[in-house]
Amino acid sequence: MSSCYGENLRLSIFGQSHSPAIGVTIDGLPAGYPLDTDALNRFLQRRAPGRTNLSTPRREEDAFEILSGMADGRLCGAPFAAIIRNTNVRSKDYSALRDTPRPGHADYTASVKYSGFQDVNGGGHFSGRLTAPLCLAGGICLQLLAEEGVRIGAHALRIGGVQDTAFDAAHVSETDLDAIAGDIPVLDAQAGEAMAAAIEAARAQGDSVGGVVECAACGLPVGLGDPMFDGMENRIAQAAFAIPAVKGIEFGAGFGCAGMTGSTANDPFRMENGRVVTQTNNHGGILGGITSGMPLIFRVAVKPTPSIFQRQNTVRLSAMENAELSLKGRHDPCIVPRAVPCVEAAAAIAIYDAYLSWKKLH
Amino acid sequence: MSSCYGENLRLSIFGQSHSPAIGVTIDGLPAGYPLDTDALNRFLQRRAPGRTNLSTPRREEDAFEILSGMADGRLCGAPFAAIIRNTNVRSKDYSALRDTPRPGHADYTASVKYSGFQDVNGGGHFSGRLTAPLCLAGGICLQLLAEEGVRIGAHALRIGGVQDTAFDAAHVSETDLDAIAGDIPVLDAQAGEAMAAAIEAARAQGDSVGGVVECAACGLPVGLGDPMFDGMENRIAQAAFAIPAVKGIEFGAGFGCAGMTGSTANDPFRMENGRVVTQTNNHGGILGGITSGMPLIFRVAVKPTPSIFQRQNTVRLSAMENAELSLKGRHDPCIVPRAVPCVEAAAAIAIYDAYLSWKKLH
Amino acid sequence: MSSCYGENLRLSIFGQSHSPAIGVTIDGLPAGYPLDTDALNRFLQRRAPGRTNLSTPRREEDAFEILSGMADGRLCGAPFAAIIRNTNVRSKDYSALRDTPRPGHADYTASVKYSGFQDVNGGGHFSGRLTAPLCLAGGICLQLLAEEGVRIGAHALRIGGVQDTAFDAAHVSETDLDAIAGDIPVLDAQAGEAMAAAIEAARAQGDSVGGVVECAACGLPVGLGDPMFDGMENRIAQAAFAIPAVKGIEFGAGFGCAGMTGSTANDPFRMENGRVVTQTNNHGGILGGITSGMPLIFRVAVKPTPSIFQRQNTVRLSAMENAELSLKGRHDPCIVPRAVPCVEAAAAIAIYDAYLSWKKLH
Amino acid sequence: MSSCYGENLRLSIFGQSHSPAIGVTIDGLPAGYPLDTDALNRFLQRRAPGRTNLSTPRREEDAFEILSGMADGRLCGAPFAAIIRNTNVRSKDYSALRDTPRPGHADYTASVKYSGFQDVNGGGHFSGRLTAPLCLAGGICLQLLAEEGVRIGAHALRIGGVQDTAFDAAHVSETDLDAIAGDIPVLDAQAGEAMAAAIEAARAQGDSVGGVVECAACGLPVGLGDPMFDGMENRIAQAAFAIPAVKGIEFGAGFGCAGMTGSTANDPFRMENGRVVTQTNNHGGILGGITSGMPLIFRVAVKPTPSIFQRQNTVRLSAMENAELSLKGRHDPCIVPRAVPCVEAAAAIAIYDAYLSWKKLH
Repeated sequence: MSSCYGENLRLSIFGQSHSPAIGVTIDGLPAGYPLDTDALNRFLQRRAPGRTNLSTPRREEDAFEILSGMADGRLCGAPFAAIIRNTNVRSKDYSALRDTPRPGHADYTASVKYSGFQDVNGGGHFSGRLTAPLCLAGGICLQLLAEEGVRIGAHALRIGGVQDTAFDAAHVSETDLDAIAGDIPVLDAQAGEAMAAAIEAARAQGDSVGGVVECAACGLPVGLGDPMFDGMENRIAQAAFAIPAVKGIEFGAGFGCAGMTGSTANDPFRMENGRVVTQTNNHGGILGGITSGMPLIFRVAVKPTPSIFQRQNTVRLSAMENAELSLKGRHDPCIVPRAVPCVEAAAAIAIYDAYLSWKKLH
Repeated sequence: MSSCYGENLRLSIFGQSHSPAIGVTIDGLPAGYPLDTDALNRFLQRRAPGRTNLSTPRREEDAFEILSGMADGRLCGAPFAAIIRNTNVRSKDYSALRDTPRPGHADYTASVKYSGFQDVNGGGHFSGRLTAPLCLAGGICLQLLAEEGVRIGAHALRIGGVQDTAFDAAHVSETDLDAIAGDIPVLDAQAGEAMAAAIEAARAQGDSVGGVVECAACGLPVGLGDPMFDGMENRIAQAAFAIPAVKGIEFGAGFGCAGMTGSTANDPFRMENGRVVTQTNNHGGILGGITSGMPLIFRVAVKPTPSIFQRQNTVRLSAMENAELSLKGRHDPCIVPRAVPCVEAAAAIAIYDAYLSWKKLH
Repeated sequence: MSSCYGENLRLSIFGQSHSPAIGVTIDGLPAGYPLDTDALNRFLQRRAPGRTNLSTPRREEDAFEILSGMADGRLCGAPFAAIIRNTNVRSKDYSALRDTPRPGHADYTASVKYSGFQDVNGGGHFSGRLTAPLCLAGGICLQLLAEEGVRIGAHALRIGGVQDTAFDAAHVSETDLDAIAGDIPVLDAQAGEAMAAAIEAARAQGDSVGGVVECAACGLPVGLGDPMFDGMENRIAQAAFAIPAVKGIEFGAGFGCAGMTGSTANDPFRMENGRVVTQTNNHGGILGGITSGMPLIFRVAVKPTPSIFQRQNTVRLSAMENAELSLKGRHDPCIVPRAVPCVEAAAAIAIYDAYLSWKKLH
Repeated sequence: MSSCYGENLRLSIFGQSHSPAIGVTIDGLPAGYPLDTDALNRFLQRRAPGRTNLSTPRREEDAFEILSGMADGRLCGAPFAAIIRNTNVRSKDYSALRDTPRPGHADYTASVKYSGFQDVNGGGHFSGRLTAPLCLAGGICLQLLAEEGVRIGAHALRIGGVQDTAFDAAHVSETDLDAIAGDIPVLDAQAGEAMAAAIEAARAQGDSVGGVVECAACGLPVGLGDPMFDGMENRIAQAAFAIPAVKGIEFGAGFGCAGMTGSTANDPFRMENGRVVTQTNNHGGILGGITSGMPLIFRVAVKPTPSIFQRQNTVRLSAMENAELSLKGRHDPCIVPRAVPCVEAAAAIAIYDAYLSWKKLH
């Protein structure tokens, strides 16, 4: 199994980098909502390749076609399905990779798992391109959550050693999310410029850089999420690790709280305008797996693009011998900027799914 | 929903800190295995409270009774169920917490979610005590995995600023796992002593400390796990965040690889004794969500015990006004030592579940 | 997998006929409901063996113990778990059955499936005794549904060639359900007596008889159930076939409508007291998988108890040769009367689970 | 939720009668199988409308396009997705049905469930057209099962009072399945002709007829299926009720065994060519939910097409008043012939899914 997600929604993502199309089906969306396809398209464009000279030269329009689930411009209660055609496909670039797997990629593990029958072109189902249908699904959930007063936004907190301003965890608001801007989405434009320079420097050496994406959700009701295996942390983590290259996730103070004492890590409760809030937000808006009404904050670690243009050591599987590899093809020197909307999408899917569970008891 | 897990196994954990019993049902275990209940009991004792003066004075025998799923000393294919009676219950300690929620706990969020009907005694279903049935399930999976040549072990990598020796990610072996020892399970005994001192210092001030647990699984076949939502990272994260107080998880180089370049983060493949291995192990044994055959390495951040004995600010929910709280009761000043077997259990459950998926295609 | 059910509820049934206990866990019940354990016990007694001389002489109190999920007499939102101890166990009756499987039983199929490691005593997990936890879960759902104005009742429509009055499908009401009475639950007391005579006649010959149970649910809102795989027919069928000995299910006119024309099978709509109703109810209250607001009606076929006391042909598995079998032990000559509450329970579980889905969109 | 199915496979069916396309995604298919798309197309043609003058005049090519899950002509392990474009769409026929629901259809229940936002054209997601993607999925499973020696076939056992020869339950073989032939798939060609006459007679009166489909699976290993909720009866029933118009299902002797005694219903075991078989097959190849190695036999009741061309009573929802309805459009006077491959498809999906569970323990 693999590409299904959800308790109330049931999401199924399909497609390979070079198959006729990629897409997503979503069962469980409520009937009646007038989906804004223009807004959905704009959200998808934030992830699309080829927009800036920081990303892969492969340019795809990423125009989606809705196949089902709508009637008269509204969600109609039937399963939603949409696809994106793969148009700009150059399969010959990848033929050698079946035998000499790229370090840091799924080439080797997929080859063993699928006994050599995996689609090797462009990384097949393991391609970052599969985040397009993830964003399609996430973009819909973002719209539905906005209807309920929930806003989600993310920014590049770190790229190649350059740090953006972090969210003020206890006070991040819709206004802060609106302030995120730039080809590299950041709060501090200067940090964004320094990040762009770091990416350019890596590209010049045929190398790549990683980073951290920080995400916040504001306006959540108290009570989303469930104990143990279906807490908000579990749910968001399960969705976020669907983004290739994510290797870590932390909520609130996260790994930082490992070095704290209880007296500094605990967030005291207090009343504010008739509402229960916490003074600080080390808990990242989640206590016992359940939303506290404070901003939900998490960060994910994104590894450097594994496709680099320096010579690398690998093996030749047919001969079971050592080999060398020099990559060609089209690859981002840093995927963090494009990962930002993907992280928002993953968060939106997980949160909206939990929201539907919550609603059935309210 | 909440306390269910698994694709091939179906785990269901139940119980409250002060209900008649806590327990677990597991559907999907294979028939025929002669479960070693003594070994299972020894594993549970590693988590049990009251073993050392570092943990809560609440002493529970944590003796389990197997209700079903066995016949003639072997798993029989029917759903497994086992319970642990709650014997040492002092409910009066907790009555005030219904109105004045403890900072850092689920008291407030559970109260809103369950409209005040939650079981408040001892934290109810949110109590760390629920990790006992998690360990019961995990202990069984550890035995079944050992049959397949897979070994899992964890240690306290950090507590209160003190660092243990980290696993050598590319070479950690069964021998290394066997070298973990002590009331605080560590590789470096001196680090363990310093950690104990740090915990004692916190206790003396009515405070608590957090830490990091590092876990490794050795002997895994190549090919466990699936793309996207059911990769090994997703599966393990969903299980690990079931442990209360876990606020972050990272695999391989994790957040560290966010600061690397591709040329340093990528793990080159090479042949070793006729087997494909990687030179380094920044990928933590997982590529594209699928095990690579290298040791699977991850770390979880554990926050300081939120139950501290210093006066804290909170609210009085009945009056919606600010209040103060001074806790009594029995609480560990550091739960990291007892979290170590819980992390092993969570890993074992996730890995064995993925193993069963893998086996059906082999 | 096997003994799990549900989309919003997650039910897990465990236990073997002669294991220490049988039981059920239910995740997803709403917090706050003051479960009436006396009423639950009365419901369980309807299924319990040994009540009349029509059923097996094995007498079990079937007293249940609630282990979790309650606080202060109310459901508390945590997973519910309850067990029933197996007290009246005589395992030596069954030892021969491992080698000479009983015709009509799961002995042979379980032996192959579980490689001979299945629990053979009393039928293990395949025993009719496992309907006790099913009734426990169903009894809770019946109470929760009654809160929403939904009533479910069943009767023995046919036993050994004797027919009870059928429900008036378009008009069956709570009053009709209350009119069901007797050790063999029927609408027509004379039919009940004739059924008892038929059962006695079978018993006298060491034989057994089968029958049909008819079930109705009244007071359902329009809109429960979903298209395709999660329609009310699918959901109820999945639950009802969990009752051993059920070999068929039909909704509304069922197999009868196979012989009708569209003009007679279609149920015309009309207004009645400001509500949309149908003139007839061949659709059994379900159109397109979704409740229509008319009474939901279905019938299940129950095969004759396979444990009979006449000599039967079988095989000796150890020698792979033909053999004969003469059963001892305690067995009902007809399980239809005790199947009646089980069918109500299965219906209640399926309907309440669908109700929770419905509620989340209302 | 609605249109998802499966434990090892995860099937998701989408589309409306008049949406741009209908289709299916299937996650969990094994890598390496060279899918025979011609054979798949031939299977789909058996269901396609417009083939004979017995069915609806709406003619669709039902040509499918595979979007993903294949590489180099083989299944590649990635989720499979395929679509069928809706080309012959005449939406104006259906506009009146939003207000005056058709008796026997989902028009009314869908309208209430989806608050009037359902896609009313051609029945939307409730259209029989959605059995095309069901057959797509089923056709793939049939090929994969054939690889394992399992063959599935069905025939029209009864239409409009005319009866075909039934399968010889204990001895049905591949040869018998190959003998099924005709536009109305039957064993007895004369019965097929009489059925065709009955359908024509109904059509002449603007009416329709129902029937029964009988299905057999041969070559199954012993041990597929699980106790309680995941027995083969439960699994097949959940799949079969996804076919619109199915109102009943029975296995083996089914409702007939309700009138038998245990001594006649029980199927004695005996040795035959070194294999354990049963003398008779009233159990329909399933004991305790698990396959016995005997032919798996079941029958489904199919109601008469609800779309008839006689005037019918209904209601006008906008005014909440009684109304009359005269249908136009294109509708089969009997859907049983086209239901035959759908029943095979449902059986194949359920059986192959259970087969994958079985394989992981073998």
